[in-house]
Amino acid sequence: MPASPIRKLHPYSEEAKKRGIQVFHLNIGQPDIPTPKAIYDAIRNYSDPVLSYGPSQGLEGLRRSLVDYYQRCGYPITIENLFVTTGGSEAIVFTLMALCDEGEEILIPDPFYTNYAGFSEMAGVHPIPIPTPLEEGFHLPPDQEIESLITPRTRAILYCSPNNPTGTIFTKEEVERLARIAQEKNLFLLADEVYREFVFDGRVHTSLLQIEGMEDRAVVLDSFSKRFSVCGARIGCVVSRNSDLLDALLRFGQARLCPPTLGQIGVMAGIRDMDQFMGGMICEFERRRDIVYETLLEIRDSGFGIRDSKIHKPEGAFYVMAQLPIEDAETFSQWLLTDFHLNGKTTMVAPGPGFYLSPEGGKREVRIAYVLKEKDLREAMEVLKRGVEEFNRK
Amino acid sequence: MPASPIRKLHPYSEEAKKRGIQVFHLNIGQPDIPTPKAIYDAIRNYSDPVLSYGPSQGLEGLRRSLVDYYQRCGYPITIENLFVTTGGSEAIVFTLMALCDEGEEILIPDPFYTNYAGFSEMAGVHPIPIPTPLEEGFHLPPDQEIESLITPRTRAILYCSPNNPTGTIFTKEEVERLARIAQEKNLFLLADEVYREFVFDGRVHTSLLQIEGMEDRAVVLDSFSKRFSVCGARIGCVVSRNSDLLDALLRFGQARLCPPTLGQIGVMAGIRDMDQFMGGMICEFERRRDIVYETLLEIRDSGFGIRDSKIHKPEGAFYVMAQLPIEDAETFSQWLLTDFHLNGKTTMVAPGPGFYLSPEGGKREVRIAYVLKEKDLREAMEVLKRGVEEFNRK
Repeated sequence: MPASPIRKLHPYSEEAKKRGIQVFHLNIGQPDIPTPKAIYDAIRNYSDPVLSYGPSQGLEGLRRSLVDYYQRCGYPITIENLFVTTGGSEAIVFTLMALCDEGEEILIPDPFYTNYAGFSEMAGVHPIPIPTPLEEGFHLPPDQEIESLITPRTRAILYCSPNNPTGTIFTKEEVERLARIAQEKNLFLLADEVYREFVFDGRVHTSLLQIEGMEDRAVVLDSFSKRFSVCGARIGCVVSRNSDLLDALLRFGQARLCPPTLGQIGVMAGIRDMDQFMGGMICEFERRRDIVYETLLEIRDSGFGIRDSKIHKPEGAFYVMAQLPIEDAETFSQWLLTDFHLNGKTTMVAPGPGFYLSPEGGKREVRIAYVLKEKDLREAMEVLKRGVEEFNRK
Repeated sequence: MPASPIRKLHPYSEEAKKRGIQVFHLNIGQPDIPTPKAIYDAIRNYSDPVLSYGPSQGLEGLRRSLVDYYQRCGYPITIENLFVTTGGSEAIVFTLMALCDEGEEILIPDPFYTNYAGFSEMAGVHPIPIPTPLEEGFHLPPDQEIESLITPRTRAILYCSPNNPTGTIFTKEEVERLARIAQEKNLFLLADEVYREFVFDGRVHTSLLQIEGMEDRAVVLDSFSKRFSVCGARIGCVVSRNSDLLDALLRFGQARLCPPTLGQIGVMAGIRDMDQFMGGMICEFERRRDIVYETLLEIRDSGFGIRDSKIHKPEGAFYVMAQLPIEDAETFSQWLLTDFHLNGKTTMVAPGPGFYLSPEGGKREVRIAYVLKEKDLREAMEVLKRGVEEFNRK
């Protein structure tokens, strides 16, 4: 198992803090958005005398709420199509374990959410990268390039849209292309849609659940961590109309007994009240995206160091995978913590290579998660800009 | 993955309830003990504006509380020896994944907690039964019988004491024997001690953490679900002085991000106040053990059906693996739900074979979890007794 690139610089940030440096954390996708009051209220009002096991597939009340939610999204699913998990993490691990045998392969657009590698390791499957270069805005390559990666051991394609770490949203046409390939090559198609609502500039998100003819092949992996700012609740789910998959998930689920009860109670309240807080949250992230993007353009155009850095404007989620005018993102990210500060403050980002399977991928890139309030975010980005300048001057 | 024997009769109990039958659930280890108020209070008072990710290895406050707890137990551990998990389930799965390669073997006293089979399946390891017959009170066979099961593929011995499903407690001598075998044969020794405090008749529990010379080989798997009646909180931990294991656990842990935050807050409060509720809870379970055991002796001596049923008096935990004067426990357990009731009430037990790897193991046994209040428990056991009588009359 590789160490998490998002968390591996942790000792250096701890050291920096001990030296009295304030560290802006743009390295981890932990939003600062307050958890909605309705969610905390529901948890505080939980009055069952025993905090007991729930059903392995999730509390019935939550599963009914989830059906409401997905139906409001326009996705034709029923309560039988749902399996509640301990976070999106478990949704992915259990799905891979259920669908793949040891040594089989899954294709994943590269770069990708780094923990997919850990989940693959746990499930004993090999992740194979589908290159989605920065120059193409991290969108899909032509069909034939994808198809050339398929072998007799390939079982599934796993994609994330809106994407972590790139912020790219696959268009309806791209999702349909993947669906067609899955049908033609007899593969499962797994869509991580945890950032479903995080779409900017009036874009529309296409869910895999909206694609017809994919009943047996489509699996949506979901989590409420980011949507409701309840990362610590650990509630996610798998949505699929493949009843064999649901049976297999239930068996894994019975072994681990149940997802956390109080988190489920909270998410139920969140689904009921989400119209009241989601809109404002998305606008906030879109404003932040603009702040980050503008500073990245300034860095690109500043004349610091090498000149050809490229930035793709994020279309959704709350990340950007940014190329910087530096030679080595690992060294730079660590240096920001060990050797740099601006008025006693520095910025922590996640080095790009950890998000790539392709060799040399992301060497000059960093992932920035824009999870701070506007004022702090502006300051964190100013620190980054001055850091790039200073780093290049050495 | 096999279906859970504890949950597989679920559809029949649902059917029975639809027909208006009241079902006493002695099939699942969900205690009815109210969750201590201090735990709910701590959760209700949680005031962080964001329910955020915690550290992958658990909240520092909880880890410090755990050190206090284990030191009070007399176990010499430090905060570096601890990894907090999402329930005891995750503690076992991650430990097996970290220690074993695909296809390796672990020895487990048979019968065992049925989910060990599921965890082994997830980790890709083969469980090999060490027979611990009812006739021997489910205690260990001679060393040479255990050693004869060890192959070059054997990586570890996993045991549970006080035991689910048998209620047997391994003596200090038995734990030392396992430790000696582990040392001589270069194996890890994994002890599931989630029922550590559930000991009856003035017995003393010997923890693996008390055995010297096992620093690198000993792994304790723990959970607070039963101890604090917080099964829905999903908080457990791994305790080991093997730093390589702790490093590996952290990497798996980073992939799944963190254990549930609110559950950790609750368990922290439970550890602080456990002296106030543990004693009474254990006495309550000991009283229940006596009720169940006495009825089982009555059934044994009643002259219903075949005459040689054997009962081992449980020494701890809150289960008994009871042989009944019937030919087939699966048929009988299902029949109780489908064809029997006493004044509109029936009892659900878990059929024995699901707890055994050995062929024919537990054919005439059922596992009874005494998790109901005295009055209900007496009634549930009376139903069982009359059920055995009626079943044998057919």
